[in-house]
Amino acid sequence: MTRERATAFVPGHVTGFFSAHPADSPALAGSRGAGLTLTDGVDVRVTAGQRPPEQHLNGEPATIAPVDDVLDTLGVDGTVAVETDLPVGAGFGVSGAAALGTALAANAVADAGRSENELVRIAHEAEVERGTGLGDVVAQARGGAPIRVEPGAPGHGELDGIPARARVEYVAFGERSTEAVLAEDTTALSAAGERALDRLRADPRLSTLMDASRTFAEDADLLVPEVADAIEAVDGATDDGPGAAMAMLGRTVFALGTGLSDAGYDPAVCHTHAAGARLVEP
Amino acid sequence: MTRERATAFVPGHVTGFFSAHPADSPALAGSRGAGLTLTDGVDVRVTAGQRPPEQHLNGEPATIAPVDDVLDTLGVDGTVAVETDLPVGAGFGVSGAAALGTALAANAVADAGRSENELVRIAHEAEVERGTGLGDVVAQARGGAPIRVEPGAPGHGELDGIPARARVEYVAFGERSTEAVLAEDTTALSAAGERALDRLRADPRLSTLMDASRTFAEDADLLVPEVADAIEAVDGATDDGPGAAMAMLGRTVFALGTGLSDAGYDPAVCHTHAAGARLVEP
Repeated sequence: MTRERATAFVPGHVTGFFSAHPADSPALAGSRGAGLTLTDGVDVRVTAGQRPPEQHLNGEPATIAPVDDVLDTLGVDGTVAVETDLPVGAGFGVSGAAALGTALAANAVADAGRSENELVRIAHEAEVERGTGLGDVVAQARGGAPIRVEPGAPGHGELDGIPARARVEYVAFGERSTEAVLAEDTTALSAAGERALDRLRADPRLSTLMDASRTFAEDADLLVPEVADAIEAVDGATDDGPGAAMAMLGRTVFALGTGLSDAGYDPAVCHTHAAGARLVEP
Repeated sequence: MTRERATAFVPGHVTGFFSAHPADSPALAGSRGAGLTLTDGVDVRVTAGQRPPEQHLNGEPATIAPVDDVLDTLGVDGTVAVETDLPVGAGFGVSGAAALGTALAANAVADAGRSENELVRIAHEAEVERGTGLGDVVAQARGGAPIRVEPGAPGHGELDGIPARARVEYVAFGERSTEAVLAEDTTALSAAGERALDRLRADPRLSTLMDASRTFAEDADLLVPEVADAIEAVDGATDDGPGAAMAMLGRTVFALGTGLSDAGYDPAVCHTHAAGARLVEP
């Protein structure tokens, strides 16, 4: 029982802090850390049987390497249309979302008979092998405010979550290459990420996520000036609110509630996403 | 930072087949099996500080033992109001939903600082210790069409899912005691459940879930006459559809698509639930 097309929605994901955990097997590699999944996300539509298979990103021809790999692994020929209002290359996990959405939709189109965990693993492996991300896929599959307790795909990694929902504001100041940062020595970064994770696991609250994320960005020397300014402005505008933090890895600031609005920015507004990635009606 | 009240929504859950796995520690005990979470579910509102604490089920005073236990574990005094359109005691996991919703809402009211996994574990332990269920809580926390691959609470058990969504119809013919069935010898039942799980894991599709569930109900000698009649009627009315199955443990039949309508029944209609249990706005 195959069908002509299927569509999946995958929430965006901002990571507040992380540690990198490479491994020979991409299912074992990944990151530990935490962040927020967002109601602003990515729609991925897979249409079967078109030759030559094509990819589109917001209507323009595109090549997203992890998407190719997912189709190859599932043995599905199809055209993939990725639509998103999120900024690309700015730390929202768009490449992970494209890979995961392709896995879910291609499995449905071809009736490939894979389980949810298998599809998440296939998308995670594609992201890791292409160097475009380490932890977005498993977080986007879970939804909410995911804590990546142990790295890796389902069956290897382990997730928890902060049981809370929130309004989220964000401003993206431009692109940043995930591959470039991950290609450098990540020892100091990862040590800072482990400290942040210890803090959050001892106190799994959104306010602690934001605070640990700010400390991480400074300790890991990842702050860019526009984001540092915005974080300072939010602190100045809101007395003892949770403040703002930087999305890893992007030139992007995000805040809970009305933090960025209060500081005079004109942010995009969304909420934490209650569900993980899912098929939607075509 | 505490607040006066909080509300959680927990999807209903019908189990198609299961095996029972008792253990000395309730976090390790549970069931393997599979089923569907439903958009028809349970709203649980916890209001802080009322003395004496009270419980209500659909507006009537009630005592739900696992709910008491969850409040005790979290050290929260509060009134719990459980509202649901689902039939109670009919195999929809209402007791598990009440326990899990109480955990999420009480944690928010008291700002108790527990993680999602901890709250799921606390609710699971309460259900297992009271004998009211073995696998609903972890399934309801995940959403979708959960496969319980290994029994137990987060950190011990393991879940997967069927990556599909469906319209679900159901008819409940009356109550059935979960405690009474679980108190009997479950050896033959569990052997049948393990066979069904092997089938579904080899072919994680909704059609296989329904077929394996029907076989399980017969092999485990759990079919009641009204449900057997309904399953036969759905088979007669739909040529090669996925058919109907029995909700474990209740006198309830459920079908995908329009199976029960086509067979002349007047079913309740809902869909598989994309998200797991979550806090909602008060």
